[in-house]
Amino acid sequence: MIKLADFERCVFELSKLPGIGKKTATRLALHLLKMTNKDVESLVNSINKLKTNIKFCKECGSLTDKDICYVCLDEGRDRKTICVVEEAKDVIIIENSGIYKGLYHVLGGRIAPLDGITPDMLSFEKLLNRVGDLGVTEVIIATNPDVDGETTAYYLKKLLADYDIRITRIASGLAVGTHIEYSDEFAILKALENRVELK
Amino acid sequence: MIKLADFERCVFELSKLPGIGKKTATRLALHLLKMTNKDVESLVNSINKLKTNIKFCKECGSLTDKDICYVCLDEGRDRKTICVVEEAKDVIIIENSGIYKGLYHVLGGRIAPLDGITPDMLSFEKLLNRVGDLGVTEVIIATNPDVDGETTAYYLKKLLADYDIRITRIASGLAVGTHIEYSDEFAILKALENRVELK
Repeated sequence: MIKLADFERCVFELSKLPGIGKKTATRLALHLLKMTNKDVESLVNSINKLKTNIKFCKECGSLTDKDICYVCLDEGRDRKTICVVEEAKDVIIIENSGIYKGLYHVLGGRIAPLDGITPDMLSFEKLLNRVGDLGVTEVIIATNPDVDGETTAYYLKKLLADYDIRITRIASGLAVGTHIEYSDEFAILKALENRVELK
Repeated sequence: MIKLADFERCVFELSKLPGIGKKTATRLALHLLKMTNKDVESLVNSINKLKTNIKFCKECGSLTDKDICYVCLDEGRDRKTICVVEEAKDVIIIENSGIYKGLYHVLGGRIAPLDGITPDMLSFEKLLNRVGDLGVTEVIIATNPDVDGETTAYYLKKLLADYDIRITRIASGLAVGTHIEYSDEFAILKALENRVELK
């Protein structure tokens, strides 16, 4: 039996990452061995720098290299509107579209009881505090348009029911540019539910 | 436009790994951010130790924590038989089966012109030297039973044609335990080609 403790250890550590099983981890470890020391150093340094310099904004939970992100600090943004997303990466995508001028709130996931993710593990309470403190007038729920995302949106809508604010949901249905032929049942259901008058 | 240089850098470095695109790299980087510092340190340490302590054997190319692997050093092994594999991980799998008692030779890949991998990039020359030096009497070609693996096996057979040795190929066909219904054409082709007399 070949026992190469340092090889097995690295495979084990890599296989703890999401979406990486033992087979992929072995492939990655062999690839690391074949890479030049310099290239592996670059990778390791970039991970170390990520952990040292990038944080989650203490206000909204999005990525930042300061304590508070530049969106939360920017007095020019519409501070009465909060767009609620599941993950910090969603903020990057919406922000880079350049269309949205309000604030964000990152839940840190979505309610998924089957995966053991319950509401208390997400930052709902912090959101309610921010809605109160900032005098928010509209919460745009931008969780993903799939089953868990819809569940999370519905839960949040109920949480916010007592606040006298506008609660909206991003439009979803068929993806713009796609064909009915290639859409699944859930997309078609939402497309029918959310149909609008032709103007 | 959100620019978080250290985040983008880490995503870029991760996306250089095989089978990891930009989307997966972003997911991994976010996961690294959510991990405890201790867990990330374990991962980084394991990569550093892998690079420091694990090498490819100077004789056969398999993984080792010395210059020469324990198989090559073991005088009790059958040194007249070499099993040729594509990758170092194949050695681990065959070795852990406990069935094989000869030596190994790792080619470092397989001939795949479409992927730009030509014979001169693999360790054929070293193999020929070893066959001569050791007075090998049998080379077992254990490249994978797919198109590129068969091409590589055929190429190697021609290379060894002038040597007065036995050249064998591992048996392939339908995977043991599988059904014809679930096998692809290539498996069925090989199963018919390699058919044996019922004893």
